[in-house]
Amino acid sequence: MPTTDAAPEDDTPAGGASSPVRSVARALDLLALFTEDNATWTVRELTETSGLAKTTVLRLVDTLQQRGLLWSGEQGRISAGPGLLRWANLARTTWQVPEQARQVMRDLSDSCGETVNLYVRSGATRICVEQREGRRSVRHIVRVGDELPLWGGAASKVLLTGADDRALAAVAALDPAGRTVDGLRAEAAEVREHGHAVSHGEREVGASGVAAPVVDADGAVLAALALGGPTPRFTDEAVAEFTVAVRDAARRISRIGIGGRA
Amino acid sequence: MPTTDAAPEDDTPAGGASSPVRSVARALDLLALFTEDNATWTVRELTETSGLAKTTVLRLVDTLQQRGLLWSGEQGRISAGPGLLRWANLARTTWQVPEQARQVMRDLSDSCGETVNLYVRSGATRICVEQREGRRSVRHIVRVGDELPLWGGAASKVLLTGADDRALAAVAALDPAGRTVDGLRAEAAEVREHGHAVSHGEREVGASGVAAPVVDADGAVLAALALGGPTPRFTDEAVAEFTVAVRDAARRISRIGIGGRA
Repeated sequence: MPTTDAAPEDDTPAGGASSPVRSVARALDLLALFTEDNATWTVRELTETSGLAKTTVLRLVDTLQQRGLLWSGEQGRISAGPGLLRWANLARTTWQVPEQARQVMRDLSDSCGETVNLYVRSGATRICVEQREGRRSVRHIVRVGDELPLWGGAASKVLLTGADDRALAAVAALDPAGRTVDGLRAEAAEVREHGHAVSHGEREVGASGVAAPVVDADGAVLAALALGGPTPRFTDEAVAEFTVAVRDAARRISRIGIGGRA
Repeated sequence: MPTTDAAPEDDTPAGGASSPVRSVARALDLLALFTEDNATWTVRELTETSGLAKTTVLRLVDTLQQRGLLWSGEQGRISAGPGLLRWANLARTTWQVPEQARQVMRDLSDSCGETVNLYVRSGATRICVEQREGRRSVRHIVRVGDELPLWGGAASKVLLTGADDRALAAVAALDPAGRTVDGLRAEAAEVREHGHAVSHGEREVGASGVAAPVVDADGAVLAALALGGPTPRFTDEAVAEFTVAVRDAARRISRIGIGGRA
């Protein structure tokens, strides 16, 4: 730690322990623009895409570069920096799904022919922690580490069964369908009763999913195992078949456990 | 981007495009405390170790948790979050050293029996982008992604040969030995002439190293390939042998190229 300045400060005008620190949020937003598909950016492009002032972008980029999280390449193009490798190792150590569980995901994907994702809940979002792409050429719309909203999709329904009222309120506040906390709680109760969830076109038109909970020894929801693909392939008949397969795979992963969270 | 607020703001009192944004730097400092060896922290421990005010720590942790970069576990312990997985993928895609080059590192480590690291320069620091541990039970003091100072060690000497005066000035400002920019420039010229560098106990007492440059087609320094281990094993005779091996391996990696930076 380079500083021992302990003044109650920083940059959130309307402070309070639960408000996000604005410049940190902005720095993370900038970092989030760097993806495998959009690996390099100019300051101008970052400024235009972020809507931030150029001076702000310059200062944030400079800070992230000093920490090695961004990298100045040729012709003024900025890319992901080598400092991210440290987080890569840490993320792997902490979140890597056991090989046995990955094998279950591979088997599920192979038998159903669709993409399999494992999601955990993080506040009012879900994050993909493992993926096995289907053998068909589905568009790869979710990447490991991606944050997705909790208001839509089969995996979200499953994860909401493990959410407390505070999380449900946060989800309700973002829900484009305008569901209330009571509405979400009722839906969660239904999913809990059935032991799985199905969705068609909730988060993205034309995308369907079937999900089941991965639970710990006490039955608490740790993650959602989801099979996803184009709606035309998710007929009633296919969904019935998929449901049996996903539930079975989720039970097997529950027995194996995921990370230290089993 | 959640915000389009373009006011020239934020939290650096004495602004300017080159000054780090304080709360971003602090957030990254907090994140940096999470390592494989110290994987979980309480807010109290973070407060004590960082020297920051508890309210500051709470707000930074909250922001990092909202982005999934930190994770609240059992008994109020905080750990690395699943959002880091996104960075992990990005870092791997951008910085993964080609398998052929990794094989050269394995061969070098096997033949010399010491740990092999590949470093790139990032401003006034160097970052380890690849590692092959030696077969002897050396203490594992550097991890992939770790930032190390540029003022000490054989790899630093090699990387300084590719540094401009601005970087040399930044290194001189941090150098515990108090070398000047001119002094560093003279040392760099010497390393450039010899084509390799040797160090004994510069960064850490009892640790020695031999390093050589990985260069692009124009001869510009891309990285430093370094062999490191305990000083008692780096006798004059061993160093002579290691030097030949490290230089040869660095030449081979230069021909293979590392990432898009060859």
